[in-house]
Amino acid sequence: MPTYPRSAQPALIVGSVAIDRIATTHGQSGNILGGAATYAAIAASYFTPAQVVGVVGKDFPKPFITKLIKHGVDLEGLQIDPKGKTFFWSGRYGANFDHCENLITDLNVFQTFSPVIPAAYKKTKFVMLGAITPALQLKVIDQVSRNAFVLADTRGLWIDVAKKDLLRLLPKVDLFVLNEGEAESLANEKNLILAGQKIRKMGPKIVIIKKGSHGSLLFHPEGFFAIPAYPVAKVIDPTGAGDSYAGALIGYLASVNKTDFKSLKTAIGYATACSSLTVESFGTTRLSAAGRKEVDIRFKILKAVTSL
Amino acid sequence: MPTYPRSAQPALIVGSVAIDRIATTHGQSGNILGGAATYAAIAASYFTPAQVVGVVGKDFPKPFITKLIKHGVDLEGLQIDPKGKTFFWSGRYGANFDHCENLITDLNVFQTFSPVIPAAYKKTKFVMLGAITPALQLKVIDQVSRNAFVLADTRGLWIDVAKKDLLRLLPKVDLFVLNEGEAESLANEKNLILAGQKIRKMGPKIVIIKKGSHGSLLFHPEGFFAIPAYPVAKVIDPTGAGDSYAGALIGYLASVNKTDFKSLKTAIGYATACSSLTVESFGTTRLSAAGRKEVDIRFKILKAVTSL
Repeated sequence: MPTYPRSAQPALIVGSVAIDRIATTHGQSGNILGGAATYAAIAASYFTPAQVVGVVGKDFPKPFITKLIKHGVDLEGLQIDPKGKTFFWSGRYGANFDHCENLITDLNVFQTFSPVIPAAYKKTKFVMLGAITPALQLKVIDQVSRNAFVLADTRGLWIDVAKKDLLRLLPKVDLFVLNEGEAESLANEKNLILAGQKIRKMGPKIVIIKKGSHGSLLFHPEGFFAIPAYPVAKVIDPTGAGDSYAGALIGYLASVNKTDFKSLKTAIGYATACSSLTVESFGTTRLSAAGRKEVDIRFKILKAVTSL
Repeated sequence: MPTYPRSAQPALIVGSVAIDRIATTHGQSGNILGGAATYAAIAASYFTPAQVVGVVGKDFPKPFITKLIKHGVDLEGLQIDPKGKTFFWSGRYGANFDHCENLITDLNVFQTFSPVIPAAYKKTKFVMLGAITPALQLKVIDQVSRNAFVLADTRGLWIDVAKKDLLRLLPKVDLFVLNEGEAESLANEKNLILAGQKIRKMGPKIVIIKKGSHGSLLFHPEGFFAIPAYPVAKVIDPTGAGDSYAGALIGYLASVNKTDFKSLKTAIGYATACSSLTVESFGTTRLSAAGRKEVDIRFKILKAVTSL
């Protein structure tokens, strides 16, 4: 079990918990632990105690539970539906990972998932909303403390089919995390500097635009920050990179119990480090094996190779 | 006339000098000063005395000469062909500058350009080869000092149609500068970390991969360095951004008379600053008007917004 600093607040993570089966040009995984909340919780667990709200079926393998518990993840909020099967996703990435073909998407128990926040989590001060529908994200916000710091992730799909809900959500979000394509589409603006500024005006106090191998951009009331990606020579499987990124963000912020500009920059450094670990193996294997020590080493290397 | 530090060595720049006419969604330029050597010389002039080798025709406007002289650029190597016209280029950029349509390319006197290095430049220790053909770049290397530090720029076209010459050139180059697409194509590798390493094995001691609005990557014998772009909210005309970048690189290195890792990182900071100024106007207007003071301010801002 990890140990945490005295300032550490728990981080509540709401999102999918899944079984994945992934093919890339490097090979084929078995049925492995997947889902946004899973990657995020493991990343967050390097900084602070993580609480997960999600749903799985009766088929969810015991070793997957054991892995999360090993990371100190609190699973009181993980509903186990004895009548259904776990969300199953299978995909095949093309060369260079610029395309992913969905082979199987069986939502199963996730189809009707409605997040219920356990009483013990209702006062949690740092909350991450995985990329569930904006309507469900709003439902979570209604159940947590008004003073909670809320990070929301999103999907390009919600910008297309649930924009109204998304625009209702944004003013209730403290930190909105989205990728380059999503930012361009939401802001209708190709210049990412302008897109970030525009999205902040839609409500979120802080916006982060993720650019994959090109790093990320931070738009914070106290200033702007840009950081390259950690130099990864061999990507094995990009699944969960964004979820690990968001999980490390909320985990670090919760661990220092701060959300100022300097803390956000450090959080982005750790988020970059964690996502670089995730892509170096199928699933959560590499991230989970790394340990805080290796995360710290990556942070230091990242700082060194980006220091002008 | 600018003043330079005592360490400052002149920088020799070989490449096109042209008259451009550019259309973007922001408007249409008149016939303006263009060409790789022009942008590079103006950028270099902020750090060290620049020497230009190129060719123009009898129609080359006096005010363009005056502008270069104002920047202290030594034009002894600028051939004026009384029988021909200056290289004329006209292009139209699409929305977001992801495409540029060539409207007119009249090579004119540039068609038969063969660089002749004046005796006074033959001992110049810092040389930039603009993206002329690799065969011509080799011709310049034969005329300059064996101890010169040689920076070479390139074009995607040479990778396609002059690869043999390019591969002969690379071992004679100290610093090879190319963009993302060119790096992928030359190394046959989509991962830019691996591509940079692979290209260094083709000969150049140092490689820089430019990624436009995503910044640049440095592969140096002493280490790796990554830097985001300067945050530009309004791009008016991207023409010459790469040339200004390379010019500032060679100019800064010549000014400190060093090529170690730390100096390269600082040079990249200045290169990033200069190219960010270039894109904020048509042609050289913004870069030329900026002055060293504004370049320094951009460098400081860049350092601040990228400091983890």
